[in-house]
Amino acid sequence: MNFFDLVEKRRSVRKFSNENVPGKVIMKALKAALLAANSSNLQPWEFYWIKDKKKKEDLVKACFSQNAAKTAQELIVAVSRIDTWKRNRELILKDYKEKGKLLPIIEKYYNKVIPLSYRHDRFGFLGAMKKIISIFMKIIGLFKPIPRGPLYRHDVFEIVTKTTALACQNFMMALVAQGYDSCPMEGFDHKRVKKILNLNSKSHVVMVLGVGKADPKGIYGERFRIDDDLVIKII
Amino acid sequence: MNFFDLVEKRRSVRKFSNENVPGKVIMKALKAALLAANSSNLQPWEFYWIKDKKKKEDLVKACFSQNAAKTAQELIVAVSRIDTWKRNRELILKDYKEKGKLLPIIEKYYNKVIPLSYRHDRFGFLGAMKKIISIFMKIIGLFKPIPRGPLYRHDVFEIVTKTTALACQNFMMALVAQGYDSCPMEGFDHKRVKKILNLNSKSHVVMVLGVGKADPKGIYGERFRIDDDLVIKII
Repeated sequence: MNFFDLVEKRRSVRKFSNENVPGKVIMKALKAALLAANSSNLQPWEFYWIKDKKKKEDLVKACFSQNAAKTAQELIVAVSRIDTWKRNRELILKDYKEKGKLLPIIEKYYNKVIPLSYRHDRFGFLGAMKKIISIFMKIIGLFKPIPRGPLYRHDVFEIVTKTTALACQNFMMALVAQGYDSCPMEGFDHKRVKKILNLNSKSHVVMVLGVGKADPKGIYGERFRIDDDLVIKII
Repeated sequence: MNFFDLVEKRRSVRKFSNENVPGKVIMKALKAALLAANSSNLQPWEFYWIKDKKKKEDLVKACFSQNAAKTAQELIVAVSRIDTWKRNRELILKDYKEKGKLLPIIEKYYNKVIPLSYRHDRFGFLGAMKKIISIFMKIIGLFKPIPRGPLYRHDVFEIVTKTTALACQNFMMALVAQGYDSCPMEGFDHKRVKKILNLNSKSHVVMVLGVGKADPKGIYGERFRIDDDLVIKII
């Protein structure tokens, strides 16, 4: 099936049949997810594949026992993190070094620019300080283009969640490519989901993905999109 | 080419050749983008395809004149919005009604639940109020799963940006499927980009996408990913 047929075929399936999903299908889809574009190659994502029966039951409950979770053969939780950049940055720099390609500009980028964006404290002091500096920066910004963020912790969360979403779309498409379906869920008790996964405050649950084969009644209606010209603007 | 080959093939291209990209290639990729999964089907995205020569020059400058922007044959800006839900909700409800499928639960969802999440004022009063209510809700949350957000305006921005990113990944993959390349950029002066596009404060620039055919020197290095087991957790 070509890419555009897959795009047409992918629908959010709310009810799955009881046909089992082979583990290698999930793993292949996860590996495709990890090849998505991502911010500064910092790969701030995590994918939790919940196999433990008790944890799975708890997760279904945390998703308000909605059908897409309850009938899913497999449940995967996509998580974004603002704290893995330090570890990942070291791995990236190590790889550059090993390949003999660590240019000064790359080293500066990962050692100076990235920490400036990603370093934050729990109480927002650093965010407030960045905000104050940004007020002075604005004067320079009157004369030439300048970077204006991320300032706050929530700005960094927006970046890492954005990147994780890129991977999620690959994941869902990779399932369709293998003849399986998914449902991305955002309706859940994020505090409970984080507890099940033992996540800290530097992580957000991006979405819970139910996976399986669609039940004949699994798609709740025809796809509806608003007119293209409301959202595609040629200027 | 099958989906997994496309995933392998998609790389962020930093320098494009001067081969022109047919308009229908862009339009086909944009239409594929709009079929991505999205939050509550509210389609809070916009894609600006910049054809005006002056605006394009300004946009390149706002992207700090980086190669990926400067050499791109086409530039598309992906935008997420927290203010189009009202219009889109009406269109969704109208479609349900026309199909004779407007169940009370759907009407309630779009008319009660969605405004509770999406309605915000500029100064954060509503966000603060939601936060206060959420403190009381936490008591209920001790006994059963409850929705815990979005509370603040920036939480809503995280949702709409997440959804727009799903569409962006489809867009990039759709270009590869047609033999073209892209570079998703986050390094830009977002204030200037917003000014060029005449965007209000209820919109975020999610990414600027440069499009073209890769120059032979367009990919700056081998792809590097950290080990799978650092980010795929089976529990």
